[in-house]
Amino acid sequence: MNTTPRNTPAAADAARLAAPFADLNIADGIERLNALDPAQAAATVQALPWPRVVDMFDRSELQHASAIAALLPGDVAGRLLDDMADDRAADVFLELDEDTRANLVGHLGAGTLASIRTLMRYPAGTAGSLMTTEFVSVPAHWTVAQTLAHIRQVERSRETVYAIYVLDARTRALLRMVSLRRLISGDPDASILDVAQETPPVTVAPLLDQEDIARLIRRHDLLAIPVVDDAGHVLGIVTVDDIIDTMIDETTEDVQKFGGMAALEKPYMQIGFGRMIHKRAGWLCVLFLGEMLTASAMQHYEVELAQAVVLTLFIPLIMSSGGNSGSQATSLLIRGLALHEVRLRDWWRVALRELPTGLLLGAMLGTIAIARISLWQLAGFYDYGPHWMLLAATVAAALVGIVTFGSLSGSMLPFLMQRLGFDPASASAPFVATLVDVTGLVIYFSIASMILGGTLL
Amino acid sequence: MNTTPRNTPAAADAARLAAPFADLNIADGIERLNALDPAQAAATVQALPWPRVVDMFDRSELQHASAIAALLPGDVAGRLLDDMADDRAADVFLELDEDTRANLVGHLGAGTLASIRTLMRYPAGTAGSLMTTEFVSVPAHWTVAQTLAHIRQVERSRETVYAIYVLDARTRALLRMVSLRRLISGDPDASILDVAQETPPVTVAPLLDQEDIARLIRRHDLLAIPVVDDAGHVLGIVTVDDIIDTMIDETTEDVQKFGGMAALEKPYMQIGFGRMIHKRAGWLCVLFLGEMLTASAMQHYEVELAQAVVLTLFIPLIMSSGGNSGSQATSLLIRGLALHEVRLRDWWRVALRELPTGLLLGAMLGTIAIARISLWQLAGFYDYGPHWMLLAATVAAALVGIVTFGSLSGSMLPFLMQRLGFDPASASAPFVATLVDVTGLVIYFSIASMILGGTLL
Repeated sequence: MNTTPRNTPAAADAARLAAPFADLNIADGIERLNALDPAQAAATVQALPWPRVVDMFDRSELQHASAIAALLPGDVAGRLLDDMADDRAADVFLELDEDTRANLVGHLGAGTLASIRTLMRYPAGTAGSLMTTEFVSVPAHWTVAQTLAHIRQVERSRETVYAIYVLDARTRALLRMVSLRRLISGDPDASILDVAQETPPVTVAPLLDQEDIARLIRRHDLLAIPVVDDAGHVLGIVTVDDIIDTMIDETTEDVQKFGGMAALEKPYMQIGFGRMIHKRAGWLCVLFLGEMLTASAMQHYEVELAQAVVLTLFIPLIMSSGGNSGSQATSLLIRGLALHEVRLRDWWRVALRELPTGLLLGAMLGTIAIARISLWQLAGFYDYGPHWMLLAATVAAALVGIVTFGSLSGSMLPFLMQRLGFDPASASAPFVATLVDVTGLVIYFSIASMILGGTLL
Repeated sequence: MNTTPRNTPAAADAARLAAPFADLNIADGIERLNALDPAQAAATVQALPWPRVVDMFDRSELQHASAIAALLPGDVAGRLLDDMADDRAADVFLELDEDTRANLVGHLGAGTLASIRTLMRYPAGTAGSLMTTEFVSVPAHWTVAQTLAHIRQVERSRETVYAIYVLDARTRALLRMVSLRRLISGDPDASILDVAQETPPVTVAPLLDQEDIARLIRRHDLLAIPVVDDAGHVLGIVTVDDIIDTMIDETTEDVQKFGGMAALEKPYMQIGFGRMIHKRAGWLCVLFLGEMLTASAMQHYEVELAQAVVLTLFIPLIMSSGGNSGSQATSLLIRGLALHEVRLRDWWRVALRELPTGLLLGAMLGTIAIARISLWQLAGFYDYGPHWMLLAATVAAALVGIVTFGSLSGSMLPFLMQRLGFDPASASAPFVATLVDVTGLVIYFSIASMILGGTLL
């Protein structure tokens, strides 16, 4: 493409389109391409040096990749998908509409078609859907020199050559892994098995979830992990850069869920208004319906409320303290479970820790509350009535009860979620707050009846 | 170590200690070592094959690494630090007490001492403190064959050889990067510059923060990024596996902060009770003091409260809805800012989005509230008095106001935090809820005075 003669109008056009990309690295080039509309981008792509185009399409940061591909001539689009890493090619292909796909199939190489078909079989978020089928494998009877010669020949894509998989010559089952580092420092005439790692490589099944893959890659400090079937055949490899993207997305999802909403699938500024409302309204309405129970609880205590309006003054304070302590405990356990620092069977250990923690934190807040009420009363800022000391005792006791309940239920909720098969991160801060609010009111009014019965109530 | 004769009692002891490790991979071996106390672990370490010991100490997952090292004979500990990756050696060395360090220095190689001294100079969390000084660099006039021979010779540590840095022969400034993949497929007689990348490599300054390094590594899909000084000299490289650990820690910190507490520096089950209380009590007390303003606000409206106790029934419902919508908006913007999807200067765009979002979400909740109050009233579940329709209108209007205020303030808080130089993730869910609670009460009672003035109030 970059050898087009420069004296035709089309060539001048191409040169003008390609010029701004000359000094940019891949990431900056992608950013510039993202700023163009798909038609402009398609024209630009045809004006740029081909290896650069492939590099840009190989990155998931390129937006509208399939919209651009759809606007390219069929043979160019076909060549592009052939030259791209096959996992990205499959992603781009699957985003095309039916007609474009049908047109494109004739332009695709047999290898590309086969890997797209393989990758399409696995559900999103599994090892099978994340893997690339382009990896280097050699039979166990090869030498180091043979393997190196093979790599020089097949060297296709950045992600595939740092780990070489050694297969049983007959069954083609995975035996060992060799790092490129060990390979180049090995004696050329040595058997490939002599430079391989001593233990069999860590592998994953094709249906393993991406979070578990991330954990294994991190645990074993790998650059790639092979995906194998039941017979031990390598189906593909999942590389560390795919996993980093996955981890970032998971984190965003977890934070959004913890904030009490369905996770957005796009950046904040790019998602449509209707979609945003949809994602937020669901949980907001559910929480609202749950929180309505507070109104019912309050109605239940209407006699007490009418008799002692002074009790209402502390309702927001007491309720929010329960929610806050619950939200702390939940955030701790969500991460603990996600990182496998805490396991499902540890729930009772956690409960035994949260119980004294809640009691102590509640006692601290209760002490502050007594100080506050006494100060206001004695300094004359506000008159809580003749029974102000009993009122202070009520508020303090309620705080101890509610903060303890908040810590306990906030810490148990992620366990419950995991036990029920949900993501522990679904135990959001607002969810915990709602749960604690309703119970908190009941605790507050029960304690009030006990302490203030016969005086205020 | 594994060649000790097997007929002495000490050798039998060593064999007994080493046996359980024989079939374990590194990660499982580390887990088993973590389960021993440091004295047992030190004895075991001396019984295991040396390369395996080095591999285990090279991983940050090994707990008590410095406690174990302190219990080893000085020459063994010195050899261990010499053979470890120098960034890990520096971490372990810095955790030793003064006396042990002083004893150990005599047993350390000059190279190890020099790199520990270099790495000690940089504050934690910067490129300088994360980097390893073990990387491969060659002068620009070398050939591919010379470079390969050099790598075979210096091949020391897994992380260092996948990127080779080409330096100016005279100034030793960084010129280009060559990947090992390109190197092995290059013509042996070609100049190293011929197989290098065309654009200068992406580099970082030694004081750059780890979050920014993670972003660059991800943006450019790198396995390592060179740390260079002002003169362009490579000081070290930060590798992708260090960055993954960093990202996980940051995520945990962010989630814990968002849950409304100071981030824990250790896993939940390992942190001491006092430390845990300390980390949680701080924010809980601050929030409690903030939330006390709700009591003051309520006191301000005591006349209205006494006149219309029915108003109090909806206080928890209304306040929590504001907190929930605020927490949603905050979680969205924290991630948006962290991923650079949204920039500080975009604040007004976000505000212009959150305003209609809040109005619409508030209107939805308001509609549900009107339906609930009407249903209870008309079905006879509860009697809200003769002015129940006005009451329903008050609750609905307050919901619109508070949800809008919650969305707006929840979305602006992360911007404000970033503007003030704090981490946007400090804008926690409980913090937003507290902010919205106090304002929410004022909004509710103001609207109540307007709508119910002359009837209930």
